[in-house]
Order: sequence, then C-alpha cells, then structure tokens
Amino acid sequence: MAEEKAAVIILFGGSGDLARRKLYPAMFGLYQRGFLQDRFAVIGTARRPWSDDYYRDIVTNAVKDQPGATPETAEAFATHFYYQSHDVTDAAHYITLKELAAKLDAQYHVGGNRLYYMAMAPNFFSTIAEHLKSESLLTATGFNRLVIEKPFGHDYQSAKALNESITATFAEKQIYRIDHYLGKEMTQAIMGLRFANPLVAAAWNKEHIQNIQITLAEAVGVEERAGYYENSGAMRDMVQNHVMQLLAYLTMARPQSLTPEAVHAVKGAVFDHLHSYSQKEALANFVRAQYAPAVIDKLTVAGYRDEAGVSQSSLTETFVAGKLMVDTPEFAGVPIYIRTGKRLTRKSTQISVVFKPVAHDLFGTQAKANVLTIYVEPSEGFSLTLNGKVLGQSTELMPEELRFRHDERAAKAAPEAYERLIQDALQGNQTNFTRWTELSQTWQFVDTIIAAWQTTTAMPTYPAGTMGPKEATELLARDGNQWVWQPTRVQLAD
Amino acid sequence: MAEEKAAVIILFGGSGDLARRKLYPAMFGLYQRGFLQDRFAVIGTARRPWSDDYYRDIVTNAVKDQPGATPETAEAFATHFYYQSHDVTDAAHYITLKELAAKLDAQYHVGGNRLYYMAMAPNFFSTIAEHLKSESLLTATGFNRLVIEKPFGHDYQSAKALNESITATFAEKQIYRIDHYLGKEMTQAIMGLRFANPLVAAAWNKEHIQNIQITLAEAVGVEERAGYYENSGAMRDMVQNHVMQLLAYLTMARPQSLTPEAVHAVKGAVFDHLHSYSQKEALANFVRAQYAPAVIDKLTVAGYRDEAGVSQSSLTETFVAGKLMVDTPEFAGVPIYIRTGKRLTRKSTQISVVFKPVAHDLFGTQAKANVLTIYVEPSEGFSLTLNGKVLGQSTELMPEELRFRHDERAAKAAPEAYERLIQDALQGNQTNFTRWTELSQTWQFVDTIIAAWQTTTAMPTYPAGTMGPKEATELLARDGNQWVWQPTRVQLAD
Repeated sequence: MAEEKAAVIILFGGSGDLARRKLYPAMFGLYQRGFLQDRFAVIGTARRPWSDDYYRDIVTNAVKDQPGATPETAEAFATHFYYQSHDVTDAAHYITLKELAAKLDAQYHVGGNRLYYMAMAPNFFSTIAEHLKSESLLTATGFNRLVIEKPFGHDYQSAKALNESITATFAEKQIYRIDHYLGKEMTQAIMGLRFANPLVAAAWNKEHIQNIQITLAEAVGVEERAGYYENSGAMRDMVQNHVMQLLAYLTMARPQSLTPEAVHAVKGAVFDHLHSYSQKEALANFVRAQYAPAVIDKLTVAGYRDEAGVSQSSLTETFVAGKLMVDTPEFAGVPIYIRTGKRLTRKSTQISVVFKPVAHDLFGTQAKANVLTIYVEPSEGFSLTLNGKVLGQSTELMPEELRFRHDERAAKAAPEAYERLIQDALQGNQTNFTRWTELSQTWQFVDTIIAAWQTTTAMPTYPAGTMGPKEATELLARDGNQWVWQPTRVQLAD
Repeated sequence: MAEEKAAVIILFGGSGDLARRKLYPAMFGLYQRGFLQDRFAVIGTARRPWSDDYYRDIVTNAVKDQPGATPETAEAFATHFYYQSHDVTDAAHYITLKELAAKLDAQYHVGGNRLYYMAMAPNFFSTIAEHLKSESLLTATGFNRLVIEKPFGHDYQSAKALNESITATFAEKQIYRIDHYLGKEMTQAIMGLRFANPLVAAAWNKEHIQNIQITLAEAVGVEERAGYYENSGAMRDMVQNHVMQLLAYLTMARPQSLTPEAVHAVKGAVFDHLHSYSQKEALANFVRAQYAPAVIDKLTVAGYRDEAGVSQSSLTETFVAGKLMVDTPEFAGVPIYIRTGKRLTRKSTQISVVFKPVAHDLFGTQAKANVLTIYVEPSEGFSLTLNGKVLGQSTELMPEELRFRHDERAAKAAPEAYERLIQDALQGNQTNFTRWTELSQTWQFVDTIIAAWQTTTAMPTYPAGTMGPKEATELLARDGNQWVWQPTRVQLAD
C-alpha cells in the first residue's frame, strides 16, 4: 500500500465537466492505491445549490465504472465528498468554506493540509486567489497548495496579471500549474529514453539530429466549444502549453538529478534559448489555417466557419504549423517542426526525431534517415527505423522498423495524467507542473506570432480530414525536409 | 530478368550430399531467376559410374520441390547436367574431362568460362588442383575460377600446403574459398546495419560498446559425422571460419566502398590486429568442453564419448567459449566473447552487442545496458533493448525491446547462402569469400589455443541441452559480464 496522504481538497468547479470526467476518477484511483485512505475530504464548490447526497451521487457515478471499482468502494469513497454552494465573489462564502474545511480537518485528522484546486472558468482564478488571502483560508499548520488549471491567461499580459494575483497569496513553490501533458505516461518516459540509454544519448544533439517533429493531431472539430475556441485558437489552446512543454523535454540538457529544481533548471534553459522571431520571420516560420468542409467516410463535415457559434469571417486558426529553434550549444540550428490542429486525419500525438543520414553513404543514395518515433497517444511506445538490407542478392537498403508498444492492458491500468498530477501535488512534487518563468517566455513567444498574424487576413484552409494546408508541407520542403508521419484516409469533397 | 552468365561448371563431388542438398537447389534458383539460362553446362564428377540420365534424375529430384519449381523447369534445368566418372588421381581422366568441357563449351556457347568447384573430401583438393594445371584444363579465353569448400586445411601448416598447391594453378583472384556464413542474409546485413545507420554508427566503438557476444549454437549432437568430427572439434569446425568471419564483420572499419578490395582491406586489418595469446593466456581465455548425457524432453541423450565412433577418452571439444580482442584504435579492450557447440539448448546463431551503461545514471542503478541483437538464424532480424519507464507513477526503468524480424515468407523466398555465393563466383565478385591471408591468420590464432589444450587432459563437460559448462559462464563473470542470451528448456538427468 502507498503511504496515505492527508488533506482537505477544496475544489472550485466541483459540478464541472473536468471534475466529473477526470478529477473524481483520478482521486478514486489514488484511493484504490491507498494513497488517499481515511484522512481526506473533498469540498466541491459551485454556484448550484446541491446537497451533499446529490453531490455524492455525482461522484459515485463518476467513478463506479473505473477499473477495479465495486459499488462498495465507490460509495465509501464518495462519503469523503462535501458540497458547498459558493459565489466566488462573495466574501462571506469563503468564511463558510473555511469553517467547513476546519471541521472536516478535525473530523478526518488532516493536520491543516489544504489543496485549493481551481477547475473552473479562468476569469475567476484571480478573484478566488484574492479571497483565499483576504478571508485567511490558508492554514498555519500543514501545507497550502494551489492547483490551477489551464488556460493560464490569454496572452502574456493577462497571464502576468493572473500570476500576480495568485502570487499575492501563494508562493511559487505552493503553486501547481497544470499542463496535463506533463502527466502523460510517454511525456514522462522521454527522460528515461533520452538519459538512460547510451545509444540514444550519444546521438541526441545537433551533430546527429536533422530535425524534430511534434504532432498533436485531433480528428474532432470544434464541437460544442466554439464560444471558447473562437477566442483561443490552436496556438493558445495547444502550442503555448502542450507543444512547448514537449519541446522542452525533447531539447533540455540532462538534469543533475530528478528533483523539481534540477528538472526545471534545464527546462528553463530551453525557454531562455528559444529562438525569437521578428514579425516578418514569424510569418515565414508559422502557418495558420482553418478546416474547410469535406466528405469523410461519406459524411459531410462542416468547415470551421460554418460551425455553430463561429463567425463567417473568423480569423481563429484551427491549425498551426511552425518551425522553432533552440539556440543552445546542443541544439542550435536543429529545426523543431510542430503542428497541431482540429479535423486532421487521425487523433494522435507523436514525436519523430529524424537523424541525419550517414556522412559517407556506402550504399549510394539509398540510406534513409533513422527515425525515432515516440507515440504519446492514443498508443504508447517507441519505434526506431533503421536501414536494413533488402533480402536477397543485392546491397540495396530498405527501412526496417523496430517497434516497442506498451501492452494495451498494462497501459490502461497505468494511472491517467490527472491521477499522477494530483498525487504529485499532494506529495509536494512540482516537477510535472509549469513554472511562471516558462509561461512567461512561451506566452511572449506565442504573442509575437499571433501579433504577426493580426497584420493580415490571409487564412489558408485545409479539407477536414487532411493533415493541414499545403503551406505546412512547404514549411518543411523549404529546408529539404518533410513530415515523417503522413497518414492518409480521407475522401475529399469535389 | 537477370543478366545471363555463361560457364561450364566442373563439379568435383557431384554425387555428394552437399551437391544434392545445397548446390543443385542453388543453381536451380539462379536458373529460375534467369541468371543461368541457356549458356551453361554442369559436369558432375565422382568415382561412381553413373549415366547422364541417372545423374539428371538425381538433379531433378534435388530441385523439384524448390519454391516455384514445376516438373518442366526441373527437367529442362537437368538437361544441362552431364556426368563423368572420375578418378582424381588419374591424369587420363582429366583429359577426358577437358574434352567434354570443350565440347559442351561449343554446344552451349560458353566462350571458355570455367568454374571448378571442389565439393568433395578435402584430402584431394591439392591433387585436383595440380592435375588441372598439368593436364592444361584452364582455358585461354574466358575465366577460370576455383571454388573451394571448407575445411581449408586442418591447421596452419596443412592450410598453407593446400594453398600452395592451388596457387600453383590459380591466382588469388581466381580462388573463391567458401565460408557459407558469408552468404547468409544477416551476415550480409551487418554492413548495412553498421554503416547506413548513423544512430548505430555513432555508438559502434570502444567508447560505447561494453562487449560483443557471438553465439553459434547447435541443438544436434555429432550425429553420423563422428569420423570427421573426432579429428576436427568445435574450434576447427566453427571458430576458425564462421566465428572469425562474423567477428571481422562486427569489428572492421567502414570500407571505402563495397568493392572486394575495399572490404577485404578492412577485414584484413581486423585479423592483423587480433590480440594474440601466450599458451597460458590461451588456457585462461578459452574454454573447451564435451557434452555429457542428459534427459531432454524425456529422451535420454548420449554424451559425446558414448557416441558411435567416438573414443571413450576423446579429447575432441564439442564446445568452445572464448574471449578475443581486436587491438585496433576503435576496439582495443572490448571483449568479444564467442561460444559455439553441439547439443546446446537451442539451434541459433545470434550476435549481441552490449553497450556500456550511461555514465551518470539519473535513475539510480536501474538502467540496464542497451543491447542490439542480430538474429542470423533460424529467424532473421534485429532487436534493440532500450531502457523505458515502468508504466505508472514512478521513475523506475525497465528494459523495452524494439524488434524487427524479417517476414518469414520473404525470408524463405530470399536466396540461400549457396545461391548467393555461386552467383558471386560466376560474376567474379570475391567479396564474400575468404582470402588466404585471413585463413593464415585465423589458423595461426586457433593453432595456439589448440596447442595449449594439448598440454592438458582436462575436459569439462556440460549436460546435453544446456548452454555449455560453468567455465563458460565464469569466463564472462571474471570481467563482470554475462551471456545475454540464456535460453532454458532442458530437463536434466538426476
């Protein structure tokens, strides 16, 4: 059994979708693994007036179908949950919350530990943080930690303002900014791959790497989220956070240890050396686009501008491709190509590390680049494409793919990103959370690109179900490169 | 269609087992691929008095079950075969042979090309070579090439004598000394793996390689070959030739090109730098053993000394393990462990390249060595063991094996070693044949070990079905290493 952690978790956004789909199952996972046992309570807050019983039914329903759940364990787990109707702008409500927390603290022998979890609309993050301070919710004994969901700001200025408001209440070491990609199994595995394998480590530098390609592809469109998405777009929604974090893991130096400080030190160095672009360079090195209507598997799929809630003249990008560079001694000059978008061919997050071909090619021009692929989702694993000899009487080469995939059942049984991250927060391990300096630098980078886009109304399109506009192909072709992963499956509309 | 080659092939040992099992099927493969079409004839010779028709039946039977064979193609192929009863010591018989060859040359428009193929008992190799010269069988137009099977001598002195007798007739560039391991698909593939893959090439040196392990394991015992084997043993039968050739391919520098000269130049450098042992060092670095009786899968298996035709006090080794080193700048100090033997656990030829662990282990002592395995037979392919992260909330590592195996059907359809080698000989490509200098050096190396063994009657044993005696384990343990491949399956006798 794991060592039990004690805490009162105050969850802002307790009635929300994220809580139901991710947080309750994650906490239940910790409960099943003994990480949460008796000494914890969760106070769910939201505007709606719910009873504890009603709330516990919600929680029970959210976890009862988890692997290994029984009706008994689901119900026992839910008894730890309490509901508090809450107006985040009303100071009096924080007093009620504080008193409930203190009562549950005594009841469950928590020792003053508090996890404040902001899982609601980001416009109230500052308000809540300020009230936590003004109404003195932070305890004198035990820990007080803030877990805060994305989006962390809309741009650099708003992120900075948000950060100032929460740091007025919490010190940096008390703040756990969520980027759930940092909780994913294969993101975590990148460090093992890079630093525990001499064969990989020896070649992980500009001498050997030709380029790195990061793809975060979604097959779905904007769905019901047009209201949010119109004000965000792929750059803010995916690049500033997930893509940038993956980029850091791929290009950072070996940390001195696995402590949060050591890991953040090397990650920070990546963002310090992110190659910055002028507006003109930004336009040359980044591509935005929107999906256009298409027929996919005989179904007509709407274009972005035809989606409910989207303006006919929308300039929100549903796709971004870009070329980034990290000006460290190890990586200077290595293009890092990224792409992410909605309505792409297939849902997949994968990373391809393309190695330079051998300098002296004994075998003519047949040797292909070695490619190491990291499959982040939906499948998890690695593959390595080497040049082998074509069977038979010739010296011709052909690519041979060596694969490792995690056993599907084992992968399913592994904790989900949120389970890992909540456990980290309860343990006080900040390794897998983003620091303000990282956010500050990535927002400033992203802001430059977005500002450059605002000088033009040009908006390339790509048929829904393809891997983006031709400009995304040209971006690499210009350097003599191409996207390694090129799935095809779509029937295009005429 | 391949380009047709024209030749009269004079096969000494035409009635033999090798001819039937390997050479006729190989030639038939070349015939099916159009490499041999109309302009070829084969004269099979042996002592027995056979008719052409009888001989052609033998040939037809040897090839009729080959993939893609039809009764018609098998018969058409066999019409090219002629039989000549032949006493290798009788000069007059060579005149008959010369006249038949000349007749067939005219009949099949061969243009004077001759391939003399020695596929018989080695004690007549010299005799034949001398008669080919004295009776002037070599033609003035076209090529004259000698293909000569192993064993090439019994030790350095006899090999030297044999070489002198054949070089009196043939120049080195006319001599094709067979080591059928050089015709194997995966032996050929080693060059592609090493020199077309920057990821592999970057780590293929003493800085990164901890040790190399070559295993040639047979599951069978001595079978019907005790007469031959008692005078040979594993060292002469397997190490001096196959093991040494694999060792050369694994440690040679990148050749300037794929020409025979360039490849032999780098292979030669390996043998030039083979670390030599004093007699005392030989005993310390080489292990010999004989298999002892055991019960395998409920069947009692005889020990070597109990086999028919084997002396009860035999000192012939059925197993050899050894540690070799190549004193080149790239490989100095890297142990190359070899083992080969009969009655081992499973039939397999495989090579494991064990890389050094990472210098600074972030993950504690959990990181295992990266191992690249080359499967030569029975399956063909590569695997690479990397350190991955154990699924779940920890930073523990576990070995993850990336595999590539050739499709079994494609592998079966690929030409066998002999088909490749006969094609090479017809094309005049000596790359995959052994040079005298290589034989000279490997025999001298092997002679030292054998001479050292002759100072003692100590003969460790291993139960049939195991991977050798404990001394073979200790050989590596002394260096802090162990055999990577450790198959288990056997039930030992009490």
